[in-house]
Amino acid sequence: MTTTHESTDAPEERLTATGSSLVAGEEVRGDAGELRAVDPSTGEPVGPVFALVGTDVVERATRAAADAFPVYRDLEPAARAAFLRRAADEVEAVGDEVVRLAGLETGLPAGRLAGELGRTVGQLRLFADVVEQGDHLRARLDTAQPDRTPLPRPDLRLVHVPVGPVAVFGASNFPLAFSVAGGDTAAALAAGCPVVVKAHGAHPATSELVGRAVARAVAAEGLPGGVFSLLFGPGTEVGQALVADPRITSVGFTGSRSGGRALMAAAAARPVPIPVHAEMSAVNPVVVLEPALGDPGALARDYVASLTLGAGQFCTSPGVLLLPAGPAGDAFAAAAAAAVREAVGQPMLTRGIREARERGAEALVGLADVEEVAGGSAGEGPNAPGPQLLTTTATAFTTRPELQEEVFGAVSLLVRYRGAAELVEAVTALQGQLTATLHAGAADAQGEDGAALVARVVPLLQERAGRVLFDGWPTGVEVSPAMVHGGPWPATSDGRTTSVGTLAIDRFLRPVCYQSAPQSVLPPSLHDDNPWGLVRRVDGVLRLPEVRS
Amino acid sequence: MTTTHESTDAPEERLTATGSSLVAGEEVRGDAGELRAVDPSTGEPVGPVFALVGTDVVERATRAAADAFPVYRDLEPAARAAFLRRAADEVEAVGDEVVRLAGLETGLPAGRLAGELGRTVGQLRLFADVVEQGDHLRARLDTAQPDRTPLPRPDLRLVHVPVGPVAVFGASNFPLAFSVAGGDTAAALAAGCPVVVKAHGAHPATSELVGRAVARAVAAEGLPGGVFSLLFGPGTEVGQALVADPRITSVGFTGSRSGGRALMAAAAARPVPIPVHAEMSAVNPVVVLEPALGDPGALARDYVASLTLGAGQFCTSPGVLLLPAGPAGDAFAAAAAAAVREAVGQPMLTRGIREARERGAEALVGLADVEEVAGGSAGEGPNAPGPQLLTTTATAFTTRPELQEEVFGAVSLLVRYRGAAELVEAVTALQGQLTATLHAGAADAQGEDGAALVARVVPLLQERAGRVLFDGWPTGVEVSPAMVHGGPWPATSDGRTTSVGTLAIDRFLRPVCYQSAPQSVLPPSLHDDNPWGLVRRVDGVLRLPEVRS
Repeated sequence: MTTTHESTDAPEERLTATGSSLVAGEEVRGDAGELRAVDPSTGEPVGPVFALVGTDVVERATRAAADAFPVYRDLEPAARAAFLRRAADEVEAVGDEVVRLAGLETGLPAGRLAGELGRTVGQLRLFADVVEQGDHLRARLDTAQPDRTPLPRPDLRLVHVPVGPVAVFGASNFPLAFSVAGGDTAAALAAGCPVVVKAHGAHPATSELVGRAVARAVAAEGLPGGVFSLLFGPGTEVGQALVADPRITSVGFTGSRSGGRALMAAAAARPVPIPVHAEMSAVNPVVVLEPALGDPGALARDYVASLTLGAGQFCTSPGVLLLPAGPAGDAFAAAAAAAVREAVGQPMLTRGIREARERGAEALVGLADVEEVAGGSAGEGPNAPGPQLLTTTATAFTTRPELQEEVFGAVSLLVRYRGAAELVEAVTALQGQLTATLHAGAADAQGEDGAALVARVVPLLQERAGRVLFDGWPTGVEVSPAMVHGGPWPATSDGRTTSVGTLAIDRFLRPVCYQSAPQSVLPPSLHDDNPWGLVRRVDGVLRLPEVRS
Repeated sequence: MTTTHESTDAPEERLTATGSSLVAGEEVRGDAGELRAVDPSTGEPVGPVFALVGTDVVERATRAAADAFPVYRDLEPAARAAFLRRAADEVEAVGDEVVRLAGLETGLPAGRLAGELGRTVGQLRLFADVVEQGDHLRARLDTAQPDRTPLPRPDLRLVHVPVGPVAVFGASNFPLAFSVAGGDTAAALAAGCPVVVKAHGAHPATSELVGRAVARAVAAEGLPGGVFSLLFGPGTEVGQALVADPRITSVGFTGSRSGGRALMAAAAARPVPIPVHAEMSAVNPVVVLEPALGDPGALARDYVASLTLGAGQFCTSPGVLLLPAGPAGDAFAAAAAAAVREAVGQPMLTRGIREARERGAEALVGLADVEEVAGGSAGEGPNAPGPQLLTTTATAFTTRPELQEEVFGAVSLLVRYRGAAELVEAVTALQGQLTATLHAGAADAQGEDGAALVARVVPLLQERAGRVLFDGWPTGVEVSPAMVHGGPWPATSDGRTTSVGTLAIDRFLRPVCYQSAPQSVLPPSLHDDNPWGLVRRVDGVLRLPEVRS
């Protein structure tokens, strides 16, 4: 039987996970099974037993979200920004314990998790600024032309409005920044959408503490509880029910391609289909041109450092590197192999992820024309396989899509190409990617051929990726106005949005036009006197209320 | 056997339809069957025999589009704008004959078609302005912070880029403004996407003349022929093949819900799923409050005029009107009935559309609690049924979604409500709409109850529609910056975009971020010196190159 308690949240209790879901501010313990986190460094259970909820609780959460929507949608920007900042403060206030629990549940090092906490609260505060800035509203006014012939023009005013309650799925690999109060949650809340989070089972106590912090911010700002709920459910049942729920209007997901496809199918099969923003898989190709191999050893060490960072558990881990045949490329490959052999595995997030990584690497190695170049040694505990470096030919890579399968973990494939034509073919064969990187060295300056190759390759990379990098490494994703963490299929379900950076707010907005509306019914964003001080297009002309940022 | 000819397009031949498809500037006659247009006012065939093409020609067109994409994508704004203006000029140059042929093929009156021609060329020119203005690029620059701790920030620059070749399906009811060179085509071309149009079979000669005008503009501006192709194909085979083609990256469609759903399913089933922008069906509810019934006769006549305009063949035709019970509502209903009885049917676009309208009206009338109030007389010819006015109760409407089925044509349902509670329930039950209209009269001023009802109803309408109108009628869609012709399902496949107005360009764009890119590989939109004079966000601050529109 599902039981519900008022969340007490006395100061000392804020640091103790109870194993409950949170529905509109209330702690709910379901009877749909139990879950305990596992410390991946030991394989031992850790933290409280979570009493999982069933589909009945999904409906309670979405009803509360739908009820909260009209109030939350119509908040003044200052009030919504204050709530986002309060949520950041509340998460930060329990930050030390969150980082400690996340370390136990994920095996990630404390320094990395402290950085991720900073990014998570920083992202909430950045979205607060976005809300106050109001660019995302994209307000446009076409004034009435009553005397126009043959027909008068009515007064038309466009603004972007939130779509409604959003379902967010926590990711395994960023227990903070892509989870309960992560990018999708922050973007949806900033847009004006209540959020129902389906927690990832790999870090439940971390999720609960963060979720309760957000719920405290909801309460402290006097908002309806349904603005935020957090559900712990068994297997895929609760997630599927959440996506199928008629009150949910959009979905944010970071995870596997099979998981993303399943949610897309569920969303498309609804009587009212909805968009799924799924960030799924990428091999993040790095293209190295001959002129970039001036110091092949140093470049190779940077590559292996990017590859092994966080046990390779980044969406942007460089899974493929296109390397010239010949002596300079050979020197790079040898140096990379040496660096991989010296590397020691770090614990992966879960046994399931470690097993999938081993299966994926075995499948790649088992393919014709793929060879293992080097392997590192396993780290401590049951879940810390050593990194692996594989190699293949450009011809094989170009003709066989199975060589582009992502292996989530520190496994990378060196693709050796002979000359510009083979490189261009291999790049042309690339599927959609989150990132694509070019190391061109001074190719541009080295005569017509080098410049022509760069001019040929960059547009091909741009067509295939959400972010194109130069002379760097794809791991590390800045949270800022100009970031794009997206890209064509299969990197995401739809390359028209980003899941990192302030542009992510667009996912959860839609345009509405008011025609001949009296001021009294218009939202303040469209009032004649522009009370929110927005930059607006009026009759096609950009109007600034004053010099402002 | 499919045959191909260079298009000669000598001046006198520009006015004669040949019955050919156009693939990248070449006339192609296929062997996949034949098509002739029918004059709906007589039921007689009219114009040349069209030699339909098969899926082999689809692939030729999409290959040409993919080949043209890199060139067309990278055009300077001035060049792309010049092409759009040239296309407008070329269409306008054959405008008289286009209007004549469209009249024969659609039965629509010459005045209406001349207006639609003006809208079509005006829309191309408006998008030329949009291209030059560059708002849609939404350029953002985050400058490098090499000394930031703990990690330096790289230089990040975001711009929106075209998605790639787009498939556009011509609509039956706007043979010019929503067809070959209509809104979707103009928006896609403005975004930088080559277009392959699948012509609507109801107005083939019109389509061919317009298509050849666009192709002449492509040639005149020295662009690759693949920027534009126009296909005449049998049944749904060519359309399905076009959506399934791996080179197509997005789809624009205006038509029936079943047609839209079929394309959505085909797009989702691809190895690489793509978005379908389908504008499908709506009943465009009009809510009349008691205080708006000061002159019920005049209001009713305006309603019937909107309903019968163009034989009701508008996506925005008012198919449902929510009317208070009681004497004022009765007076409105009686006046509307009288106006409908006086109205004479106009020819519908095709026999199929007329038959579907009759089936739809019969189905509605056959439902319990639905009664026919009045019918007009049939017009001349076989396809001109008289308009019909039906009525039902708010209770029936609220509880039975089948009463919300769109009947494409001049058929409307008066929904009588008793008091505010019944009205709110009926409005809450409304599905997604292109438009929703409120006639509130002086309700706002008539005490708390009136103001409260307006405050309650307007947000409900906004949640359910792309455009909310006050004291007007939904037919008539302005092409302007602030227009939204979209809305939640089932009005469209995805309410996050519009198919009319300049914001439609967003459909065909996606964001890309360049990280640490040298100036030489950046698009000019992101160069330090801002050569295109764009409004850009730089480190979060809005930068204007000068005072500009």
